[in-house]
Amino acid sequence: MKNIKLEVEYDGTDFVGWQQQSNGRSVQGEIESVLSKITNQPCSLIGAGRTDSGVHAKGQVANFRSDTELSVEKLQHALHGLLPEDIVVKCVSEAPYEFHSRFSATAREYAYRITQVPVAIGRRYSWYVRCRLDAEMMNKAASSILGTHSFESFCKAGSEVVHYRCEVHRSEWEVRENDLRYHIRANRFLHGMVRSLVGTMVEVGRGYRDIQEFYSLCDKNDRENVGVTAPARGLTLEHVYYPGENLP
Amino acid sequence: MKNIKLEVEYDGTDFVGWQQQSNGRSVQGEIESVLSKITNQPCSLIGAGRTDSGVHAKGQVANFRSDTELSVEKLQHALHGLLPEDIVVKCVSEAPYEFHSRFSATAREYAYRITQVPVAIGRRYSWYVRCRLDAEMMNKAASSILGTHSFESFCKAGSEVVHYRCEVHRSEWEVRENDLRYHIRANRFLHGMVRSLVGTMVEVGRGYRDIQEFYSLCDKNDRENVGVTAPARGLTLEHVYYPGENLP
Repeated sequence: MKNIKLEVEYDGTDFVGWQQQSNGRSVQGEIESVLSKITNQPCSLIGAGRTDSGVHAKGQVANFRSDTELSVEKLQHALHGLLPEDIVVKCVSEAPYEFHSRFSATAREYAYRITQVPVAIGRRYSWYVRCRLDAEMMNKAASSILGTHSFESFCKAGSEVVHYRCEVHRSEWEVRENDLRYHIRANRFLHGMVRSLVGTMVEVGRGYRDIQEFYSLCDKNDRENVGVTAPARGLTLEHVYYPGENLP
Repeated sequence: MKNIKLEVEYDGTDFVGWQQQSNGRSVQGEIESVLSKITNQPCSLIGAGRTDSGVHAKGQVANFRSDTELSVEKLQHALHGLLPEDIVVKCVSEAPYEFHSRFSATAREYAYRITQVPVAIGRRYSWYVRCRLDAEMMNKAASSILGTHSFESFCKAGSEVVHYRCEVHRSEWEVRENDLRYHIRANRFLHGMVRSLVGTMVEVGRGYRDIQEFYSLCDKNDRENVGVTAPARGLTLEHVYYPGENLP
């Protein structure tokens, strides 16, 4: 039995999300269906991050166990030929049998893109915010969540998790021309966490919310006072880290 | 009578091109229809470059004459509210009465993007070329067309033009990681010229065609020997230059 690891890029616009669901195209479902066809056996894919509907990935990681005799090169070519063009499997490799794309991961990195002018090209990958944003204040908010904190306030209600603590290694806004990009890396993420953080920091950036209010949401259970949830289209899962890989 | 100038960005994927046609959505048609609604009078839009189906623009320029009393700010807001999201009017301004977006233009700049790895995000804006390309050879080819030359070989058959001479001010390949971008600026372009040049240079870059063959196509009428036409999706009209604007 082989354990095969995939690195996957996708444009999340036309998917119901990573996870297979009854109501539409899922990334997992599309890849599983092609893999089953190629290997002639049912394939069950485990993804590192269960991205929501509309969320993109440049570096999603997934794995499946199979006794296929096809080489990783053959698998990659077949996947490239048969997958729809909004999914690209960038790399196929054999992993140790115990490798589990979700449980073995040590960290994940997401990026969120905001544009300050409307765009047609790239509109599928960004959130247009018309109000001028104070990037300095947003960076104050962003750096306040570095380290280990409870993110219950920023977690979608109804999430079944044992605890809400996440260890945040990177949290910063990069300022480009007419463009703001938020980068966050943590050992784990709660459901809806990045979009809720971004939406709340944007309210700080437009002066609608005091920075102290932002500080007071962390390490609390105060879902009623977080900001709007930023739209899915701006969010991209950039990278999943595993043991042996140096954190930057 | 006012002469109103628009700067327009669009994602060309779902259009039959700039120019109004009977067989589908055109950028010109969409903007004209919104302008007529806003100003309550028929509007006839002149575009600087008649981009083909699937070709994008970041800096298309267009103008129309109207006796509307609406301010340019009001027009821009209304356009933003009523246009589909794959068209963005970035700027609305009043131009001198004699300004003509096509005839007043002194130069146009296009960019063509090639990726050397398949991509899902941004696939709408690039051409994936699997063979490794020799960027140095492609730059040799690119620089050979600088200056004034006849581009009849690279012009779509049946184009009604008086002559085929274009003055090329910039022609170079920029090398990025897994990504090649061609930049060309000229006083005018013939129909299909950039895509034909790119397709032919790619054949040089993959070693399929000798650089001497490329040189011999310029200043000739030798349409049979040019390379394949590069797909529309990789091409973007970046900027249109007018008198008074310094060429970079």
